[in-house]
Amino acid sequence: MLMVDLIKKKRDGQELSTEEINFIIEGYVKGEIPDYQVSALMMAIFYQGMNDRETVDLTMAMMNSGDVLDLSKIEGVKVDKHSTGGVGDKTSLVLTPMVASLGIPVAKMSGRGLGHTGGTIDKLESFEGFSTSISTDKFFENVNNNKISIMGQTANLAPADKLLYALRDVTATVDNMSLIASSIMSKKLAAGADAIVLDVKSGSGAFMKNDTDAKALAEKMVSIGNMAGRKTRAVISDMDQPLGFAVGNALEVVEAINTLKGQGPDDLLELCLTLGSQMVILAGLCDDEDTARKMLLETIESGKALDKLATFIESQGGNKEDVYNTENLFRATICYELLSETDGYVKGIECEEVGMASLLLGGGRRSKTDEIDLWTGIILNKKVGDKVEKGECIAKLYANDNAKLEQAKTRLFDAYSFSSDPVNKNVLIKEIIK
Amino acid sequence: MLMVDLIKKKRDGQELSTEEINFIIEGYVKGEIPDYQVSALMMAIFYQGMNDRETVDLTMAMMNSGDVLDLSKIEGVKVDKHSTGGVGDKTSLVLTPMVASLGIPVAKMSGRGLGHTGGTIDKLESFEGFSTSISTDKFFENVNNNKISIMGQTANLAPADKLLYALRDVTATVDNMSLIASSIMSKKLAAGADAIVLDVKSGSGAFMKNDTDAKALAEKMVSIGNMAGRKTRAVISDMDQPLGFAVGNALEVVEAINTLKGQGPDDLLELCLTLGSQMVILAGLCDDEDTARKMLLETIESGKALDKLATFIESQGGNKEDVYNTENLFRATICYELLSETDGYVKGIECEEVGMASLLLGGGRRSKTDEIDLWTGIILNKKVGDKVEKGECIAKLYANDNAKLEQAKTRLFDAYSFSSDPVNKNVLIKEIIK
Repeated sequence: MLMVDLIKKKRDGQELSTEEINFIIEGYVKGEIPDYQVSALMMAIFYQGMNDRETVDLTMAMMNSGDVLDLSKIEGVKVDKHSTGGVGDKTSLVLTPMVASLGIPVAKMSGRGLGHTGGTIDKLESFEGFSTSISTDKFFENVNNNKISIMGQTANLAPADKLLYALRDVTATVDNMSLIASSIMSKKLAAGADAIVLDVKSGSGAFMKNDTDAKALAEKMVSIGNMAGRKTRAVISDMDQPLGFAVGNALEVVEAINTLKGQGPDDLLELCLTLGSQMVILAGLCDDEDTARKMLLETIESGKALDKLATFIESQGGNKEDVYNTENLFRATICYELLSETDGYVKGIECEEVGMASLLLGGGRRSKTDEIDLWTGIILNKKVGDKVEKGECIAKLYANDNAKLEQAKTRLFDAYSFSSDPVNKNVLIKEIIK
Repeated sequence: MLMVDLIKKKRDGQELSTEEINFIIEGYVKGEIPDYQVSALMMAIFYQGMNDRETVDLTMAMMNSGDVLDLSKIEGVKVDKHSTGGVGDKTSLVLTPMVASLGIPVAKMSGRGLGHTGGTIDKLESFEGFSTSISTDKFFENVNNNKISIMGQTANLAPADKLLYALRDVTATVDNMSLIASSIMSKKLAAGADAIVLDVKSGSGAFMKNDTDAKALAEKMVSIGNMAGRKTRAVISDMDQPLGFAVGNALEVVEAINTLKGQGPDDLLELCLTLGSQMVILAGLCDDEDTARKMLLETIESGKALDKLATFIESQGGNKEDVYNTENLFRATICYELLSETDGYVKGIECEEVGMASLLLGGGRRSKTDEIDLWTGIILNKKVGDKVEKGECIAKLYANDNAKLEQAKTRLFDAYSFSSDPVNKNVLIKEIIK
């Protein structure tokens, strides 16, 4: 088999066989097939696409390029949840204790973030002493005892995807649904869950800028998951404005805790209930969404979900008291109130710009080695459709550096647009793909 | 300027500017832009194409990546001739002494061949002692004194093209007219001639397998040449069967000499007169093709062209007597007559297979380091449309090794197909593009 013949085959619109896709991925990881042949193939795929069978084969080949987690030591149906990423997205922090408190095992691998805020691991490190650098044995033990543990991604999860993504990033071959879907799913499948619920974000703060693309990606991923033998569902949700009010690491943790206390933002709660009910159904606890939602709400009302978070934090080295009293999680030295200059309604919030403002405050990473300031961030007071008066606070910025604050506040202000006429609120849940 | 943005631009069907194309080629030659980005760009060009302006810019950028020959020390209008390559193509050996004997300076750079036969340099080395490894000074001196010299290609002629071609070859990005045309023309323009006549072959033994592709390539190259300020014309000629009767190095030299003696095959003479008359017109010796053909024919009838070849061979170390008496050029130890097994007419000759048979006899190279057996080859006795009787010789194979002969004779026999009905002869000259 010659790589140049496989490039030509795809170039001319033909289908690559399972054997051929395995040959490409194995050869690439071993260094036997050079970057320049793989990038030419990626560009051919950009134009010619891949069918569902090819996409699944690519996903499985990338999954098998590294460690595949065996979660069989954990009792019960393991359900994983993945978000394609957005601004203010703290759903995992709310959802995982909720479903764990229902007895569904949460055995989650998470990563650090690159971009406007940190990833779940960064956020959790707002709890002093908390660590995700735990052994696999400890991970399994925690899940079996408490139904919840989160560990850092192992270095060798889908290494083919890491190589391929880095190459696609510099060769203008990122924008293809099959390639995007297989990249995400190869890591999710390698993480070993029996079922997967995907939160596919759509809008200005998401990778997918419109509903059509978001739906196409969701369908591809659901198809890959199901063809790979894992029950998979996707929720398409709005990312045309940040989720909830808080953007930033510790600030998002506090908002998640408040949500578990029944005092969270409506949109965040609604999304957690929607995603969570799919998880509850896939775990086999009930058959319908109404029952699932009631079960989930009960974990909040009874305080079980909050207690579960406290147990989880303690089991990985944190202080559980910080969950009940969040004072320790506010450490920014400067709080600046951004005021409206007009009367009217919030017409739009350029979501990516809010993320950039948070990054400018120190809450995100531009490169892998950047240090994150966990305490900075933004609390939005006004969201799309809200009435606003001149001089009223539209958002608070939490900072530790005046120069950074100056940059961030302009960026945040420019992210807002206003209208004198009333504006419809965004629709949060757009579609559920099963 | 970022290479990834330029790839994206072309990927999305936009035009690259002159500055951008220069940035790419300069960066690539300097090693600042890696292979994997260039191969992705080449694949994008495969799908999106390049317009005439971009194609000329790419050609000029590749030309300027290395030495550009200054032929201004040579008096007169320098006219170069280039063939896209075929089987039995010895036109340069016939044409160059013809036009030189008319006073048109022939200052030609040639290469060695990779494939079924050697290149012009390999063929000329059939003359014992002849060498093209001469200094540039000697090259200019010979052209000014004798109007003809051929030197080996300098190492640094269009190095960008060498890099790019090697990359395209292994990434399935060869088949694009703009890339093929700019590759050929960058070297031709760097070789410094004032005017260029191109022989674009079409058929089973050529790079372009049909007339449509051959015409598209011819038009692209003529357009590039003219836009670059060199008068350029192209002749599209048949390569659905070998040109003339001889295939192989020394055998082709003998056929070229016979043609200069007025005893060559009709098709070879006709093609030389067609290409030659375009050269004579571009050199400004006359305005019309009829006059040009008469001038060229006269160089044969008078013996001037043959004398010019003798002078040329002598000026570069060979023995001029070999031109007048070709006995020294027959050195194969085995001659095998391939006989027809049917009565009828030659319907077709798979041209590339004849080339392969010659290569199997030792007359070609599979890799750059292979040694060529200059004395082996094939003399076809029957060509397309010829009547043939059972037991009649259709071709002679000249070999120095019985095992090689066995392989070659089967291959050559299989290249022939026969018909019981009369078959039309091929049309040799298909079109002239000015």
